This record gives sequence, structure tokens and C-alpha cells, in this order.
Amino acid sequence: MKVYLDNSGTTRAYDEVGDLVRKVLCEDFGNPSSMHYRGVESEQYIKEAKDTLAKILKVQQKEIFFTSGGTESDNWALIGAARANKRAGKHLIASSIEHPAILNTLRFLEEEEGYRVTYLPVDAYGRVKLDALQEALCPETILVSIMYVNNEVGSVQPIQEAASIVKAYNKDILFHVDAVQGFGKYRIYPKKLKVDMLSVSGHKIHGPKGVGFLYIDEHVKIRPIIYGGGQQKNMRSGTDNVPGIAGMALAASMCYDHLEEKVEHMRQMKSHFVEEVLKMPDTVVHGLYDETSAPHIISVGFAGVRSEVLLHALEDKGICVSAGSACASNHPAISGVLKGIGAKKEYLDATIRFSMSEMTTEEEMDYTLQALQELVPMLRRYTRH
Amino acid sequence: MKVYLDNSGTTRAYDEVGDLVRKVLCEDFGNPSSMHYRGVESEQYIKEAKDTLAKILKVQQKEIFFTSGGTESDNWALIGAARANKRAGKHLIASSIEHPAILNTLRFLEEEEGYRVTYLPVDAYGRVKLDALQEALCPETILVSIMYVNNEVGSVQPIQEAASIVKAYNKDILFHVDAVQGFGKYRIYPKKLKVDMLSVSGHKIHGPKGVGFLYIDEHVKIRPIIYGGGQQKNMRSGTDNVPGIAGMALAASMCYDHLEEKVEHMRQMKSHFVEEVLKMPDTVVHGLYDETSAPHIISVGFAGVRSEVLLHALEDKGICVSAGSACASNHPAISGVLKGIGAKKEYLDATIRFSMSEMTTEEEMDYTLQALQELVPMLRRYTRH
Repeated sequence: MKVYLDNSGTTRAYDEVGDLVRKVLCEDFGNPSSMHYRGVESEQYIKEAKDTLAKILKVQQKEIFFTSGGTESDNWALIGAARANKRAGKHLIASSIEHPAILNTLRFLEEEEGYRVTYLPVDAYGRVKLDALQEALCPETILVSIMYVNNEVGSVQPIQEAASIVKAYNKDILFHVDAVQGFGKYRIYPKKLKVDMLSVSGHKIHGPKGVGFLYIDEHVKIRPIIYGGGQQKNMRSGTDNVPGIAGMALAASMCYDHLEEKVEHMRQMKSHFVEEVLKMPDTVVHGLYDETSAPHIISVGFAGVRSEVLLHALEDKGICVSAGSACASNHPAISGVLKGIGAKKEYLDATIRFSMSEMTTEEEMDYTLQALQELVPMLRRYTRH
Repeated sequence: MKVYLDNSGTTRAYDEVGDLVRKVLCEDFGNPSSMHYRGVESEQYIKEAKDTLAKILKVQQKEIFFTSGGTESDNWALIGAARANKRAGKHLIASSIEHPAILNTLRFLEEEEGYRVTYLPVDAYGRVKLDALQEALCPETILVSIMYVNNEVGSVQPIQEAASIVKAYNKDILFHVDAVQGFGKYRIYPKKLKVDMLSVSGHKIHGPKGVGFLYIDEHVKIRPIIYGGGQQKNMRSGTDNVPGIAGMALAASMCYDHLEEKVEHMRQMKSHFVEEVLKMPDTVVHGLYDETSAPHIISVGFAGVRSEVLLHALEDKGICVSAGSACASNHPAISGVLKGIGAKKEYLDATIRFSMSEMTTEEEMDYTLQALQELVPMLRRYTRH
């Protein structure tokens, strides 16, 4: 049996997305910047994609900007907004458990461009501490960035409360949300949440890799980070990735179709899985696992089993999971997120992330549970003490 | 009849590329950063793509870095190398007829980061003046950027001669080539040419949009411009666009298969087209059109006919062409390239670019000629004097 439980790493594209991407590549292949009918035809795909995404977020079409993925969206939001607003101050705030696309971009801004960054601690469940946010705000603060769902432990951040605190202190401070793990699982309305910018990736929602978007509220001052032919109102140059954009919009639309039912199904599978896995001795589930947590992410620590060993043992049974976060590209270091939530030492290098999608079945989850019940005691026996 | 002669704007993807992209999206959909078999499987696509591209350029696999397209490649080469080498000096040199992805990135470096840029004039045929390059070099020069083939008039730049001049002056000065219009038409060997960095785009060679690469010689000091999970040896973060990368490599491999025959065929069509079009009165072909020019680009000025009007008249007959360059995204301004080569005033807003690909047929070119012979005299009659 093949079981793919690394959907927070990447997802399988919907068949309909694959078909559409192929069609746009080989048939409707125009460049939207061209003035002839092939250009107009391909521009239509872009317009429809903006329309689809704007409706999902309840924002304006003109507030949707396409990028090469979540990482570029995060880089652009931080670097572009920091540069455009530096006269107002050079202080930035982020949670300490952001994705590396945020943390390493902030490091660049600190080291190379003279910005100061405050990293907010999180509680034992991986939620940013709001009192720390309140304390961190200062007259030089220009931007706050907090993710929607943490990619490693699935904690859902108190975005609306955080944004309220920020805007009450100074409504000009920009609030950015990395929603790469939240989009497609939650109905997210930036205007209602007082969120100014929101990053989304295509390949986490059964869409194509190499494409994402950044929602930018029309009032936000931001500079481009990629220069050229002036596409996207001079904000992001480069020939529009029409097949990718069309594919991502189709994926988003399919994701949000019957969303509540799909999420409820994932929640049921998560509850059952957590219940069973906690029956195993010396096992912990990081973060919360009730309905205040993300429905698709389960982070489990198995004391006495190195995560890499368990990962490969599961792989032998056809089960794909992640040790910590797959986003950290082949160099599994001790997770800053697990440290941040104060996980006990014995779980730091003994944690596996199981991440579902709407394509995950109960049968697959049961098969995985059985594999764990068989493998974990066996591997523990072989671990040196 | 449908005739697509805007291949310098974008190309139709090969059917095999469309099929492969679909397969990778929907079947082999892993994230190369994952440690399980789906990750390994997708990493294999990346390795094979690097192997294919490195062999075509006769460089090392580790010198190929994937980007979201030609524009990002250009931005990265200029910004990344400028920042990494600024202690050696802050003077940059480029031709005055570079693509906007170069010119506008240089403008950013001038206005925001304190670099000084010298723009080299070109001769009447659109080739950069080498004596001007020689004069521009100074002890603060750290980077020279010259395109392989100009996208508007098809002039081929004297890359080898220019690189020799630069390296003779100071071998530490980096030489970057925007080869977006040259790759897939010429066999380009950076090591032989003494080129340190080379930008390529996928969608100009019947590959996917939203993907490109930057060749970076192993000795080049360069910083990333996008930060995150540390993919591509920490040089370009973001989940690898596996379907795009695999599709681009397949396209490159197909492009270079029987290249000489395909190019010869385009040359014959170009010669015949130019010969016939010059029989029409008050008509000029910009740049050279012998074998020292690019085989696929023909830039023709029709005095007394506004290019936009002719473009739409051709469109009514099913023929897609470009007025100036499609890359300048829907705001057709007077071309800096045509001004640069000293084109007469009556041709500045009366020039059409016909750009072929290996898919272009003689029948299509003849149909286009007939359309021009019919339309141009008619449109001239209606033009007010």
C-alpha cells in the first residue's frame, strides 16, 4: 500500500489541474503581454484566476499578485514593504516559529539592510504570545508577520487578535500573514482580519509547483523585488506563468468546494489517529489536536526512536512522512519550532509529522497506525541506551 | 489560416513537454527536499535536468541553478553579483539595448544601492561597440552584462570578443550574458566564451512558462536574492519547480536535437521573407539579415503604417506578430533599441517583429508575405498625411 502523508511538504496536483496546465502549455500558449488574439486569450486566464482567488479571499482582483511560490511571496512582502516604509521606521516583528522563508528573509534585512527584528515567543501549544506582541510594538515598528498555520506542529495562530493589537497601536503598521499552510483549509478573509498582505503557494493545495500569489491590500506601500518588463502593474516583472496561474486558481477553487465536509473528514481522521497513537507508551502529540488546531497536521514524538530511522522504516512500508519539516531542504536540523514550544529533549530528534490532504483515506490512516504499532516497539528495542 | 510569428514573445510548448509536466504534477509529484522515496524520485528529475542542461552548455551540473524564468535569472545575476562583489567596486557596464529585465534591474542598483552604470552604444546593425566597452572599463568595474541576441532586431552580440576585452583588462570582472533569445538557436559554451553567468528562460524554447535557469561559474561570488528553506545549496530557496524544471530540460534537449538543420531552415525562410518584403516600397529591415544575424527574428519597418494598426490587420488574417517587443507588457512605447540603432523617424512607430520557431513553415511565411503585400499598400492609403 502506498500512503502519502507528507501533504504539508507538497501535494499531488488534481488531475483536472494537470490537464489544464497541459492545455495552456500546448494550446493556449500565448503571452498575456502580446497584443494579438493569443495574448488576449492568455490574459483571459489571468483575469479569471484573479477573479477566482479574489472571490475566495473576498478581496479585489487588483489586490492579487502572482509570484513563483510561497517563498517569493514571503520575500516580497517583507523586503518590498520594509524598503517602501523605511522612512517610518526600521523595526519588524515576527513569531519565532515562522517558516524559513520568513526567518531567513528577516535575517537578510537585519544583516544587510539595517532593520531590527523582534521574534515573539510561543506558548507550549505553538501559539504566538500576544502579550509579547503588545510589548514589542514601538514607534519604529512598520511590519508584523505571523503565519496562519505552523507547518511543523499545525498550531493555528491568533491572527485576528494579533492584527487587532497591532492596528490599535498604530494602524499604519503592516500586518503580513504567511498562509501557505492555512489557505485551502480555512476560509480566510484578509479584510475582516485586518491583514494587509497574505502569502499563498500553489503546490500545497493540489496545484502546480513554481507558482503562488501575494495578496496586497490596495493601500499598502510596497516595492517590487524583481525588475523587468513591467508586468503586473510594474510590481512583478517576468512573463506571466499562465499555465501555473490558471492551474493554481483551478486548484484553489476545487479545494474550497465542499471545504467544510473535507475538513471535517480530516478532523475525524486526526482525532482517531491521535487517540490511537497516544495509547502507545512514551508518545506525545505536539501542539493541540482539538478543533483549534489545523485539521491536516499531526506532529508526534516517539521517545527512543530517531525520527530519521522511523521515517525510513515507514517508507519501507510505502508510507511517506516527514521528520520535522520537509521545507528545510535535506538538512534535518533540530527543529526550532519544537524547541520553541518547549518540547522535552527526548522528543526533539524523535518527531514525525503526518500531514493529510483531502485525498487521504481512513484506510490509509489505519494502515499507518498499524505500521507504527509494529515498528515503534521494535525500533525502540534496537536503540542503544 | 493561423500563423504564429511571435515566438520571441513566447512559444508553444512541445507536446512531449506538456505530457511530462502533467505526469510530474499528477504522478511523480514529490518534493525533492523530502527524505522518502517520493522525494528521491522527484530529486532524480532535478538531477537529470541539470545533467541535460550542463551537457548542452558543456559546464558542470553544480553550475546550473533554477529560477522562475529569464527575468529572475537576470535580476539574480546582476543584484546577487553586485552585492557580493561591492568591495571590489561599484561600477557596472551593459549594452544600451538590453532587455528591460537587465535595464530596469540596473536602474534599481543605481537608484537604491549606489552603483554606477555605463550603457554602451550600438552600431547601426544593433551590435554593441567594442571600443566603447574598452573605454568604459575602469578599476571599479565589477560586472559587464551583454545579451546574446537582441530580442527586438535579432542582432547577435560579439560576446566572445567582448568577454576577451573584459578579461584582458581584469579577469576578476564578471561577464554575464542574457541568452534568453540565443539559447536554443546557438550552441553556446560559456567556458569557451569566458562567460561567468548566463540567463535562460524555459518558455522561449518550447518549454514551460515560469521556469528558467542561471548558469553560474563555480568561481563566481554571488548572493541569493530569495531567502528561505535553503534549497539549491542555499542559493535559491523555495520548493523546486520539478514539473517546470523537467519540462524545460526536455524542451532544451529537443531544441538542440538536429539544431543545425532547424536553424538552416529558419535562415532560408528568413532570407526569402526579407528578399520579398524589401521589394515593397518604403520598407526597411532593421539590423543585419545575413547569417551573422539571429535566424528567427525579422524586424521590418513599413513607413507610413502605424505598427499597431498593421498588427491588428494581420491578426484579422490569423497572423500573430509583435510591435516592437512583447516583453514590454502592454505599454508599447517607442523602442529604445530602434532609437539605439539610429532607425529613421518614419520607422520608429511603424515596425513589426516577425519571430519564427522550428515549428514555423514556409507556407505560413508565404501566407504572411501575401497578407503584407495586400495590407500595407491599403493601410498606407488610409493613413493621414
